[in-house]
Amino acid sequence: MPGMTTTNHNRPATIEWVGDAASGHLRLIDQTKLPGALEYLDCQDVGSVWHAIKRLSVRGAPAIGVSAAYGCVIGAQAGTFGESADYLATSRPTAVNLFWAIDRMKGLGTADPARLLDEAKAIHAEDAAMCDAIGRNAMRLIKEGGGVLTHCNAGALATAGIGTATAPMYTAHDAGRKFRVYADETRPLLQGARLTAWELQQAGIDVTLICDNMAASVMREGKIDVVITGADRIARNGDAANKIGTYNLAVLARHHGIPFYIAAPTSTFDLACPSGADIPIEQREPAEVQTAMGHPLAPADVKVYNPAFDVTPAELITAIITEKGVIEPVTEDAVRGMVG
Amino acid sequence: MPGMTTTNHNRPATIEWVGDAASGHLRLIDQTKLPGALEYLDCQDVGSVWHAIKRLSVRGAPAIGVSAAYGCVIGAQAGTFGESADYLATSRPTAVNLFWAIDRMKGLGTADPARLLDEAKAIHAEDAAMCDAIGRNAMRLIKEGGGVLTHCNAGALATAGIGTATAPMYTAHDAGRKFRVYADETRPLLQGARLTAWELQQAGIDVTLICDNMAASVMREGKIDVVITGADRIARNGDAANKIGTYNLAVLARHHGIPFYIAAPTSTFDLACPSGADIPIEQREPAEVQTAMGHPLAPADVKVYNPAFDVTPAELITAIITEKGVIEPVTEDAVRGMVG
Repeated sequence: MPGMTTTNHNRPATIEWVGDAASGHLRLIDQTKLPGALEYLDCQDVGSVWHAIKRLSVRGAPAIGVSAAYGCVIGAQAGTFGESADYLATSRPTAVNLFWAIDRMKGLGTADPARLLDEAKAIHAEDAAMCDAIGRNAMRLIKEGGGVLTHCNAGALATAGIGTATAPMYTAHDAGRKFRVYADETRPLLQGARLTAWELQQAGIDVTLICDNMAASVMREGKIDVVITGADRIARNGDAANKIGTYNLAVLARHHGIPFYIAAPTSTFDLACPSGADIPIEQREPAEVQTAMGHPLAPADVKVYNPAFDVTPAELITAIITEKGVIEPVTEDAVRGMVG
Repeated sequence: MPGMTTTNHNRPATIEWVGDAASGHLRLIDQTKLPGALEYLDCQDVGSVWHAIKRLSVRGAPAIGVSAAYGCVIGAQAGTFGESADYLATSRPTAVNLFWAIDRMKGLGTADPARLLDEAKAIHAEDAAMCDAIGRNAMRLIKEGGGVLTHCNAGALATAGIGTATAPMYTAHDAGRKFRVYADETRPLLQGARLTAWELQQAGIDVTLICDNMAASVMREGKIDVVITGADRIARNGDAANKIGTYNLAVLARHHGIPFYIAAPTSTFDLACPSGADIPIEQREPAEVQTAMGHPLAPADVKVYNPAFDVTPAELITAIITEKGVIEPVTEDAVRGMVG
């Protein structure tokens, strides 16, 4: 759908620049308030952009990169472009797109807000275009009357566009296709319940929330025709790290004869990484599992295992859909052919 | 372990009769307060027993039956045995053991508290003995240094003894065996996080809490040697209905070459039920999925699918461990041979 944007009535813009280069500002959905309230953060100074990234008001690597680029413009308005850029880079240590976007802004060699705003808008538009291209390439996976299962939030809220795993859903929906989406709640941080269910519901897409342990049942009952998730990092043999629970789904899909797809931009591939065994898995705080949204639900001192990601081996992935095309079957040769 | 009871120091008694027949009363762990607090309910009249069952202060079909039997004694103390028994039967409509225990008490043909207390204590002791027998029959599944995965709470808190799925864990632990248990939190009602993690921790068993969607990862990492769950109803071909997420685990276990066992008393079998397809699956309130322990975590009006149980087909079950012996392989002939 050329020209489609994320600002239509039912699809609130995750990230928006309001006003002109000289006095405009950054407006973000405050994702910490979802799904209880749709509130916007108007960031008029660099400190408020830094805090918005730090406290996860904006999250998802692409969305963080775009937000930081606009933050640089706000720094330039105040005559502090260079130090603002360096400061923004300290907001989150691991989001690669953050450093990439800031480096690109600095690389222009100017502190002129107008020139910098043009570049930030270009980064924004490229991200949205990447999402749109994934949507076009993956739209065939969404059948009329079909059922789709997804996990976590690789959605509009994680990008400056229509998301990655959600891109074919928005694209098919805009084309008038009718289908059902099942969203795993995605413990422990509940991105599926809080964010994916919310954004698909806002867009008028038929979405049903399930607990993660219900996926096998809905598959067995014939409700699911295809599973589509995003990815955080893909090794050159096609093994894909994504939110914990994704590997779970891939095994269940294989058992039930359901195709399992990953939708991700080519920037997600790490060709220096031979296989999934080489992708380090972050272990997170026990408190995330001991609570839900801060409310205790287990003995406070109980031992917890809390890996943030798991790795789905290439042989369980039917295809990987990128903005450049489809990798199918998922082999090292096919990955190199598509990504570089 | 002949003579083992549930009242040792580290294993709080789910159900206990305190005092004599004439003036004694029923003491229950108030499971609605777990794991935040270990509080006891002292039920001195029939109304408080009825409410304890109704509001899930005591849950698990065996534990409910034993509690109701003691409730009948309390009714007899007040000279209202017959009406008290009928009243207690209205506390929960689907717990078969409730009616069975009350019928057994009425069948004595007496309203003498002393005679009724003897019968209630017999029901209590038979339930504990059933658990002990399952523990002995299944203890070989727990290897020294091994890893066990369980789901929901088929534990001491659900019975008047050492539980069903947990029975081999307590038995092996008492025999000095060292092993690790992984407990699925078991969304939406979190019986694994609230109850299983708590009771195993109290008993000094090495327990680690995981989110349901982490099961595939811990299996892949070689942490799990055996999966053991309970069952709510088993068809005569061996298909087993249990808490939602159990079928999930059975598929994952098969994929990883890990044996999957069900531990359940022979009273769980429904020989009138030909297969799992004939077991009705209760659909529960959307609010259970939209919240965790009452706290909202999804859009309030989002559509939800919330089956309370799933059915694991017999072909995914390595064996069923009962108090009478082991059904392996799980076939209709083997079930009939063991159960009748």
